[in-house]
Amino acid sequence: MSSPHPPRLHPLLASRWSPAAFDGEHVVDPDEVTLLLEAARWAPSAGNSQPWAFIVGRRGDADHAGLVGRLTPGSRRWAPSASLLVANLSHRFVEGTDWEFSEFAQYDLGQAVAHLTVQARALGLFVRQFRAFDRDGLQQDFGVPPHWEVTTLMAVGRPLDQGRSQAGGARERRPVAELLWPPPSPTSR
Amino acid sequence: MSSPHPPRLHPLLASRWSPAAFDGEHVVDPDEVTLLLEAARWAPSAGNSQPWAFIVGRRGDADHAGLVGRLTPGSRRWAPSASLLVANLSHRFVEGTDWEFSEFAQYDLGQAVAHLTVQARALGLFVRQFRAFDRDGLQQDFGVPPHWEVTTLMAVGRPLDQGRSQAGGARERRPVAELLWPPPSPTSR
Repeated sequence: MSSPHPPRLHPLLASRWSPAAFDGEHVVDPDEVTLLLEAARWAPSAGNSQPWAFIVGRRGDADHAGLVGRLTPGSRRWAPSASLLVANLSHRFVEGTDWEFSEFAQYDLGQAVAHLTVQARALGLFVRQFRAFDRDGLQQDFGVPPHWEVTTLMAVGRPLDQGRSQAGGARERRPVAELLWPPPSPTSR
Repeated sequence: MSSPHPPRLHPLLASRWSPAAFDGEHVVDPDEVTLLLEAARWAPSAGNSQPWAFIVGRRGDADHAGLVGRLTPGSRRWAPSASLLVANLSHRFVEGTDWEFSEFAQYDLGQAVAHLTVQARALGLFVRQFRAFDRDGLQQDFGVPPHWEVTTLMAVGRPLDQGRSQAGGARERRPVAELLWPPPSPTSR
């Protein structure tokens, strides 16, 4: 319990956490935004389907304001001060249609966001993902059709408190033994 | 088209690709397996739900043989020679039950696998994910109940051909401009 990571976990992973508050003065430059998108872009996906898209708002621009407008009261307290607000879209299946889709759209979007998060760490940035927004309203405002889903939002920037004011409190995880199938106590799963 | 990546994309991401064939002599040691799982374990997830589990087979052990037994003829040609075969499980929602679940189980599993993939690169290893297996049969063999899903399998190891014999041919992606909402040609989406 003393150290959350074994010594060899790569620093880009070991140093990742989800800030509870962001520095409202920090600015991400456009080249950094491009590089974050590049990281997502080169993520793997089922059959190279690349079932992802992003709405990127830099603090102060119109897309940022549009995203802020659909935050819930809870996320509106902390998310607008982040340097970026980004909506993460997955190309989803809609039953009864013949729209092309991937069974792995959400899984692959998760991978793309993870790759972006690793690149963010390489740039000294941190990411916090969240679901506290009005999905239908946001999709309407940005003209997102029903075969796309705004799956998550994320805030990207510098933490306000480098001393790790962490979303959700202390960093804890199930022990490795519980990640392996079969679990130690199947009834609890 | 000349260079697939801008120069600053982090090497752990820029150097990632999915091998079409693996070195059947290479062995991953148990400490490396632990470290791969650690990387997955510390991935973020909705409400810290950690909706993931893994069946890890090292080439030659019983879990490996069990996973090989449920590969399709196509994946059986290349996947068994990888140092590891791993089943990636998500804790999924089953309608009509009161099992706990996360709406983001697949999304979060994708993130955990991505974190593992980055750690693999840090160890000099490569990952290829795939869906070419008998899901029902595999779940039956390993006693996986219906509220868990073996979402994907992955092969982990050293490529047989360092000259990039890549699954699915050349590495290509949509241009960054097409990742941004709204897309340039909405009718094609």
